[in-house]
Amino acid sequence: MTEKKFTTALIVGAGAGLSASLARVLSREGIKVALAARTTDDLHDLAVEAQAETFACDASKRGDVEKLFANLDATVGAPEIVIYNASYRTRGPFVELDPQEVEKSIAVTAYGAFLVAQQAVRRMLPNARGVVLFTGASAGVKGYPQSAPFAMGKFALRGLSQSMARELHPQGIHVAHVVIDGGIKSARRAEPADKPASLLDPDGIAASYLHIIHQPRSAWATEIELRPWVEKF
Amino acid sequence: MTEKKFTTALIVGAGAGLSASLARVLSREGIKVALAARTTDDLHDLAVEAQAETFACDASKRGDVEKLFANLDATVGAPEIVIYNASYRTRGPFVELDPQEVEKSIAVTAYGAFLVAQQAVRRMLPNARGVVLFTGASAGVKGYPQSAPFAMGKFALRGLSQSMARELHPQGIHVAHVVIDGGIKSARRAEPADKPASLLDPDGIAASYLHIIHQPRSAWATEIELRPWVEKF
Amino acid sequence: MTEKKFTTALIVGAGAGLSASLARVLSREGIKVALAARTTDDLHDLAVEAQAETFACDASKRGDVEKLFANLDATVGAPEIVIYNASYRTRGPFVELDPQEVEKSIAVTAYGAFLVAQQAVRRMLPNARGVVLFTGASAGVKGYPQSAPFAMGKFALRGLSQSMARELHPQGIHVAHVVIDGGIKSARRAEPADKPASLLDPDGIAASYLHIIHQPRSAWATEIELRPWVEKF
Amino acid sequence: MTEKKFTTALIVGAGAGLSASLARVLSREGIKVALAARTTDDLHDLAVEAQAETFACDASKRGDVEKLFANLDATVGAPEIVIYNASYRTRGPFVELDPQEVEKSIAVTAYGAFLVAQQAVRRMLPNARGVVLFTGASAGVKGYPQSAPFAMGKFALRGLSQSMARELHPQGIHVAHVVIDGGIKSARRAEPADKPASLLDPDGIAASYLHIIHQPRSAWATEIELRPWVEKF
Repeated sequence: MTEKKFTTALIVGAGAGLSASLARVLSREGIKVALAARTTDDLHDLAVEAQAETFACDASKRGDVEKLFANLDATVGAPEIVIYNASYRTRGPFVELDPQEVEKSIAVTAYGAFLVAQQAVRRMLPNARGVVLFTGASAGVKGYPQSAPFAMGKFALRGLSQSMARELHPQGIHVAHVVIDGGIKSARRAEPADKPASLLDPDGIAASYLHIIHQPRSAWATEIELRPWVEKF
Repeated sequence: MTEKKFTTALIVGAGAGLSASLARVLSREGIKVALAARTTDDLHDLAVEAQAETFACDASKRGDVEKLFANLDATVGAPEIVIYNASYRTRGPFVELDPQEVEKSIAVTAYGAFLVAQQAVRRMLPNARGVVLFTGASAGVKGYPQSAPFAMGKFALRGLSQSMARELHPQGIHVAHVVIDGGIKSARRAEPADKPASLLDPDGIAASYLHIIHQPRSAWATEIELRPWVEKF
Repeated sequence: MTEKKFTTALIVGAGAGLSASLARVLSREGIKVALAARTTDDLHDLAVEAQAETFACDASKRGDVEKLFANLDATVGAPEIVIYNASYRTRGPFVELDPQEVEKSIAVTAYGAFLVAQQAVRRMLPNARGVVLFTGASAGVKGYPQSAPFAMGKFALRGLSQSMARELHPQGIHVAHVVIDGGIKSARRAEPADKPASLLDPDGIAASYLHIIHQPRSAWATEIELRPWVEKF
Repeated sequence: MTEKKFTTALIVGAGAGLSASLARVLSREGIKVALAARTTDDLHDLAVEAQAETFACDASKRGDVEKLFANLDATVGAPEIVIYNASYRTRGPFVELDPQEVEKSIAVTAYGAFLVAQQAVRRMLPNARGVVLFTGASAGVKGYPQSAPFAMGKFALRGLSQSMARELHPQGIHVAHVVIDGGIKSARRAEPADKPASLLDPDGIAASYLHIIHQPRSAWATEIELRPWVEKF
């Protein structure tokens, strides 16, 4: 049985880099893309290129997320694919961390993922189909020094992903966690000429997301780790 | 070199069960124990038995935690041993979870651990000694269905513990995460007569905490998993 | 930069099921496929279908593996893609396990993987390109009761894969471990009519292998876990 | 219920360092210790000090292990505590590894552990009590470059330990895996004067083994990780 194609996608935490690559690759597949970000100011060019709708939304705010999904319902329709890319981090010696920044790291990186996923899954369950992908980090598998807030956020995101996968896979919703280990190449972050492919190419990452989206339900990935060939791990 | 004995301890999330066993065993070692809990109403008997001071503190509130440590400074002194036991959980189908309850699960289970640990470590660092122990759960290693909030909280706690251990061990502060896998025996939760030792005995768990507290710095544990002999895992 | 296409592949442990799907999908990509198995008796139809050469080889025997690669050198050429699928298992109460069967489980499941990978990598290194994929199992991540021999073999295979990935990725050789969690559908093992997609479809698994083979070196997977939607984990 | 004390122990892979510390600490507990090693030449002083019997045994040889246990049965009695410390490693670039050395690494590090554990458990099961401890390494959790043989052996050992724990805990046999991460201090390996406690003190490790041996069955550890405070991880 060929499984039915997906037609709508939501990318949260959109911006340059990975989200842009994802928007382009999904759009090329004929999927209608919605982009949500705290501010949509920088999304104009991408929206044109990927024929995407843009939505302003602070994913860590319950009201914002509810409004986002009400807007989606009324316009492009409930997304069958949801990718949560948003994250926030603060670094520094443990004793100097600002508790408010720690709260924000957890809120944006993990609690927002819960809020978005819950709204999305409510709309997916009646059809018993849909994909939720979380962009994780090596920080979600190993807690690094001077980086407790990000470790807390990305570990929590991985816990959320595992809990959802175990509960929702048998109900037809595919949930997966992508561990990105390394810096991502972008307009602002070029890689050194003498070290080709030492940063993750966002198009390369997007190809793995697309692969997971297309997996048949008899062979679903729950986690995949991606890193550049020269990355120490 | 025999390392210097610890003389003061703080247990957060005190109550019946594990915290009571910990208070007793530390007290028997001649360590002065402070007990902190959201409400101290139920701590009277334990306080008498373990000759402990009690403090009311909602560990998920920054102001409460700062006040707790100011009080400790002014009374029993800064704790050299800190054990974070507090947690909160809510369960249910993913789509029915109350976002406020999810926030509270993360706040009490993980963010409060950060707040307490930060205050504690600020006082330990000048002496380059101290122990911080986090009470984890199998939910912090594996995300279970219908239990996303607890998974998020306990995963975040494990990420916090790892980040702190990697940063603070070389500064003389011992940080460890104890994975408790199974139910804990208590006055309210007796084990079935036909299944002896099928619940974790809190005295047994406390013995492992005490062991970790006494470890010389040349052989520090960063994680230990405990479960009853008959527990499936 | 578009990376150069691979032209030759070796599948070890070939037979029905996953290896057949892999042979077909690689052949469709225009890749010349070599199939190695302890006995080639059952490979005739597949060899015709996938235009593949077949080789008899007990992968746990050093001499056999050396001969296999000498034969490849002289015929289809050194493989740029190597997939190690062979495994052997024995089950039963721990105290009743036959030590010889335990040895064989480790030899076929892990030591043979080393022998094949070493021969392959020797030929890949001068060109700084190639892919080595190991077919793992959930038994390589979690040791199950009554299954110590398979746990030993599959854990060892995962250790081999990690060590190779850390050493060889910076030298241009892509090494990845695919965790298969669940039964694989085959002519001999049909899935129950009332539980569609409850077994892994080998074509679905093969699609993930092909995806990994095509990954650009800026975003290489080191591990991916695959399981059917209804599989408990 | 106070659980009955253990009276006999076997340490395999005995020699200087950890095994000597274990022999001393067990002997001080009043436990009769048997020491087995490939050669007993160097064990004389330790045997006297710990009042221990010594046995020559290549643990990777089935016949040797069977003879060892027959000898134990006839002399000190079947061991209630078994500690497997033996390991063998070879290092180097992957393509230069000698297959025979790889075989030996797996045989001594993991297969020997199986042989010893099986003989031991056969004698423990009728009494539904006993402890089997495996000395692991960080190499059993993470495969390092240029170290595939040790990764294969120590991963296999961890798989064996997990499989045994899941099967045998409900039958009253305690099985645990101790991850040693770092170098162990010994007569031949002193630590730099400017880096106190930068090597694991074998007495410190032995204290953790003893703690696990004494754990009540309601709170058994299945794994503990030990490393010096200054060790990077």
